[in-house]
Amino acid sequence: MQGKYRALWLNEENFLEVIDQRKLPFEYVTKVLKTTDEIVEAIKDMTVRGAGVIGSVAAFGIYIASMEVKSYDELKEKSKFIRDSRPTAVNLMWAVDKMMEHLKNSTNLVLDAKKYAIELNDEEAKESQNIAKHGADIIEEILKKKSKTKINILTHCNAGWLAVIDEGTALAPIYEAQKRGIDVHVWVDETRPRNQGASLTAWELTQSKVNHTIIADNTGGHLMQIGEVDMVITGADRVSANGDVANKIGTYLKALAAKDNGVPFYVAIPASTFDLDIRDGMKEIPIELRSEDEVKYMKGIDASGVVREVLITPKDSPAINYGFDVTPARLITGLITDKGLCEADFDKISEKFNT
Amino acid sequence: MQGKYRALWLNEENFLEVIDQRKLPFEYVTKVLKTTDEIVEAIKDMTVRGAGVIGSVAAFGIYIASMEVKSYDELKEKSKFIRDSRPTAVNLMWAVDKMMEHLKNSTNLVLDAKKYAIELNDEEAKESQNIAKHGADIIEEILKKKSKTKINILTHCNAGWLAVIDEGTALAPIYEAQKRGIDVHVWVDETRPRNQGASLTAWELTQSKVNHTIIADNTGGHLMQIGEVDMVITGADRVSANGDVANKIGTYLKALAAKDNGVPFYVAIPASTFDLDIRDGMKEIPIELRSEDEVKYMKGIDASGVVREVLITPKDSPAINYGFDVTPARLITGLITDKGLCEADFDKISEKFNT
Repeated sequence: MQGKYRALWLNEENFLEVIDQRKLPFEYVTKVLKTTDEIVEAIKDMTVRGAGVIGSVAAFGIYIASMEVKSYDELKEKSKFIRDSRPTAVNLMWAVDKMMEHLKNSTNLVLDAKKYAIELNDEEAKESQNIAKHGADIIEEILKKKSKTKINILTHCNAGWLAVIDEGTALAPIYEAQKRGIDVHVWVDETRPRNQGASLTAWELTQSKVNHTIIADNTGGHLMQIGEVDMVITGADRVSANGDVANKIGTYLKALAAKDNGVPFYVAIPASTFDLDIRDGMKEIPIELRSEDEVKYMKGIDASGVVREVLITPKDSPAINYGFDVTPARLITGLITDKGLCEADFDKISEKFNT
Repeated sequence: MQGKYRALWLNEENFLEVIDQRKLPFEYVTKVLKTTDEIVEAIKDMTVRGAGVIGSVAAFGIYIASMEVKSYDELKEKSKFIRDSRPTAVNLMWAVDKMMEHLKNSTNLVLDAKKYAIELNDEEAKESQNIAKHGADIIEEILKKKSKTKINILTHCNAGWLAVIDEGTALAPIYEAQKRGIDVHVWVDETRPRNQGASLTAWELTQSKVNHTIIADNTGGHLMQIGEVDMVITGADRVSANGDVANKIGTYLKALAAKDNGVPFYVAIPASTFDLDIRDGMKEIPIELRSEDEVKYMKGIDASGVVREVLITPKDSPAINYGFDVTPARLITGLITDKGLCEADFDKISEKFNT
């Protein structure tokens, strides 16, 4: 398949083609996005998801939008719809702002937007490779310290190549460790309510032949108690200047359990995930509230291979669906960034990234 | 319906009739259990579940078994199959042992077994009423201390009347608070992988018109961080002499979050849930490992009202399914027992229950 190991690409007609991630792991279907409205819709309805991929789609979205306008000011107006399509992922705002800043003095919006979106993507791929390297170094250190040859890594949600260009963030060190010949096993948090772990991460790891086991989100604490988790690596949607991490709902609970059991808890991110305007992540990062139907309905395939959505709760019981939570910096062992390991600490982050 | 607010009863033919809890909340179906094999199967396959109800079914199971034997020794042999049907719930062993102890010198096994099983049930109903009263007193205290009129209680799994005779354990104080006119709202943890919260607890609360909202298991930590949880009440399957609590997998994660956010965390249990032979719950309580299919498949109803089971993961990805975890005593604010509030502490438990 064309999109293997890539979540998006420009097709032969120079439109944006993406994997429809809502259909995984049951069907591999791609979707061509030709208009700003389609870009916004694809981000909103989670056809595409994952901090990095949302940023990439937004960057290419500005290119798509540039074909619909006659001036920079018009493009600016259109860009707001893309920028506002989801509230928590900072890469989205970052990518739109970067693109718009770059295009300020452009005399050929379409040409320049396309060129710069591709450049941004290439930069991200490089970041992913750096994260992979720094993360795999940490994995090697942990194994050395424990005198073990096999590592058990727990991850939450999906931060692999379906979420971030190239090999992702949280999964990048895992892929790299495998390349280095390390015996890696991944505990995959199901990640309710949208099951990005059980569907996307498990699918990605299957494609890459990485040894893994799916667990209910409830299970990680027990596994840590019985010594079956050597480290946790997650991605993030936004990291504040003081090192607080907004990531998929439930990340905070795993960080608490890791702390309680002396398990190192790492967050893998490119520099673009920092939002240094936010000084106190716990207080200031907005948390997206999504439809209750994501909790009440579940999608899967039946015995005859047909994809079906089923109601799993009493029809009239209400549900609430926060998309993210914030893990305080005090619970985080370190941030694995493209510029190397960084403590989740205001001064250290400021020193390394506020340049 | 006959079984409303009861999970089991003797039918007109003096066999045991139970609600098939695997079919809730989609279908209300009862099942008649006429043989020891059917009793064992119903416990194993979770037709019946919940610590108290398993104990009750086991007690009536001894009565059912007594109709198949000619001597106490034969009954003793049969009773072992019931006793071993699930490993974590101590009420199961407790109920079987109590019954067998009582029947030791019986000259009419069937008559005495029936009589004593009914007595045990009546005692449990009384315990539930006492738990309700003590728990509701604590709810009133919390509201008073906070000068609030509405209480938000988070619960995990199902410990209502579907799990324990009468009004249950964890839900008993909630029903009692509602009777006292308190404005109660319950956050219902979905409780993956078997969804006892989203199906059973939500269904029970709907029947009883208690205000509630279903949440993914990942969500409780965030709700505590933003001040939306006033207290947590769960049930338990086994509590050791030192106050460690074995309960549905994921309970430990909520206890960590409660501790981190200063939210009181209570466990509601009848005295029969104590296993005072176990001194260190963290080390000694056996944890049941169940089928991976409970993680990989999900049951619900489709748009036309048909109950369907769907696969929600890649077909070949393995899953692991621990049924319980152990929450250390240090995270527990108090045990709400039928004999009043008790600290989760070796000496306090010993003083109150080891008599």
